[in-house]
Amino acid sequence: MRIVREVEELQRLSDAERAAGRRVALVPTMGALHAGHLALVAEARRRADLVVVSIFVNPTQFGPGEDFAAYPRPFEADAARCREAGADVVFAPSVEALYPHGAETIVEVERLARPLCGASRPGHFRGVATVVTKLLAAARPHVAVFGEKDYQQLAVIRRLARDLLLGVEIVGVPILREADGLARSSRNVFLGAEARAQATVLRRALLAAEGAVAAGERRSAALLALVRAELEKAPLAELDYAELRDPESLEPAPAALARPALLALAVRFPAEGGPRAVRLIDNTVLRPAAPQGEPS
Amino acid sequence: MRIVREVEELQRLSDAERAAGRRVALVPTMGALHAGHLALVAEARRRADLVVVSIFVNPTQFGPGEDFAAYPRPFEADAARCREAGADVVFAPSVEALYPHGAETIVEVERLARPLCGASRPGHFRGVATVVTKLLAAARPHVAVFGEKDYQQLAVIRRLARDLLLGVEIVGVPILREADGLARSSRNVFLGAEARAQATVLRRALLAAEGAVAAGERRSAALLALVRAELEKAPLAELDYAELRDPESLEPAPAALARPALLALAVRFPAEGGPRAVRLIDNTVLRPAAPQGEPS
Repeated sequence: MRIVREVEELQRLSDAERAAGRRVALVPTMGALHAGHLALVAEARRRADLVVVSIFVNPTQFGPGEDFAAYPRPFEADAARCREAGADVVFAPSVEALYPHGAETIVEVERLARPLCGASRPGHFRGVATVVTKLLAAARPHVAVFGEKDYQQLAVIRRLARDLLLGVEIVGVPILREADGLARSSRNVFLGAEARAQATVLRRALLAAEGAVAAGERRSAALLALVRAELEKAPLAELDYAELRDPESLEPAPAALARPALLALAVRFPAEGGPRAVRLIDNTVLRPAAPQGEPS
Repeated sequence: MRIVREVEELQRLSDAERAAGRRVALVPTMGALHAGHLALVAEARRRADLVVVSIFVNPTQFGPGEDFAAYPRPFEADAARCREAGADVVFAPSVEALYPHGAETIVEVERLARPLCGASRPGHFRGVATVVTKLLAAARPHVAVFGEKDYQQLAVIRRLARDLLLGVEIVGVPILREADGLARSSRNVFLGAEARAQATVLRRALLAAEGAVAAGERRSAALLALVRAELEKAPLAELDYAELRDPESLEPAPAALARPALLALAVRFPAEGGPRAVRLIDNTVLRPAAPQGEPS
């Protein structure tokens, strides 16, 4: 496995693969790799001849007061995990390599980036869209693989890849969870023992809504009330948002669900030994069965 | 020469050339081709094996009340000129092909796009940056060729290509002029006879400033006063801007020029037979000689 730091080197490598008729996959990450990331690498491995994992903690997607400085950067362990997972290249550029002196170009996906995490984290998706556009330009992949935990991020990236005619297939991989249901996240390590135990409430809230939909509940307000009631059972949990949205457009879901709807949650827990909160997100797509005689 | 309408077809064509080790050049245009454009095609021909000329009147770079609808679209004549000039491909996509249903991604170069034409035409360079990013993604060229008449556009595109790591060389071609000095522009045809005769005032104003600099004038205010006095000799000319700027950063030039400075002009003339004005731009880089004993 090769470690590449320079954009031009990665471009030459990718161009040579493409010219030889081989397929290139990119798995963009911020490092601190866990089993969820490794599932992305495995998916990339199935879809391409050359698998590139990028490791880059992108400053422009963190707001002031967010955890950019504290974000974990265990590079040696990450590289070892990439090797074991079958990656061919780890692309680990410097900030200067991705944001050369004087860089001022931004990429923005307008409507999709506004609600949910976009509302809680102003500028976050502008940073994501900008850096992903750069990473796709550096790796020139046929396919790029992202996790579905960051549902809105995946929607934003699908849209930008299509809008900017990048000719890259964007693949989403289902959420990987701990045994107790907590979605895998690099930020889980910041949870103290008690917060960690309570953090399973996100998954329980999603399951409560899924169960209610399976039992026939279609009213958005009733489903969200159920979700909030479930989240309130965890005294350390502080709700950021719990919303029902159209899975494609991310527009608000109707008062009565007739089609699939994204249920997206963001919840803050106290961080261990520090003043900052740990913000966790999770989601599911609720699928009301079609009434008899109508197409699903 | 081939006419291509679909993005995917152009990408396949370019990928095949690249895989075979041949170089691809793109000349982005809005059509209504004149000798200035053909000089760009000739420059592309010298630098690449496959020359693609795109012809696309981009709606997002026109403001409300600007001349999008009236912009000339003589496609058959344009295609013939491209063939004569040695182009291999004319890429003439529909608006829907470049802005697929639901497109909402924008590309923006922040500081460089603010002054000059960016101040006069809000949103213009956002439209330019967005469409050029798409055209570069569609044609995947090694080199792209633009005219220096649109000096700020060229600066914006150089910056975005570097910032987004597109790995494409951006080449500028000097302004091509009519025999009487008027810079070639697709909009010159909208000038009535009297306005056409007076339109040479832009070039005369630039030459007056160049002459003054050659004679030792370094004071920005004096140079701009000279330019304005020259422009006032054309009674139909209505000044939009006349500014001295740093040629790289486009920041305002200092009160006394010590290094090269961009002199950029935008002037409106009445359009023939219509209420709308014809807005002409022109520019030169003033080069004060370095004082004795200092590097130039």
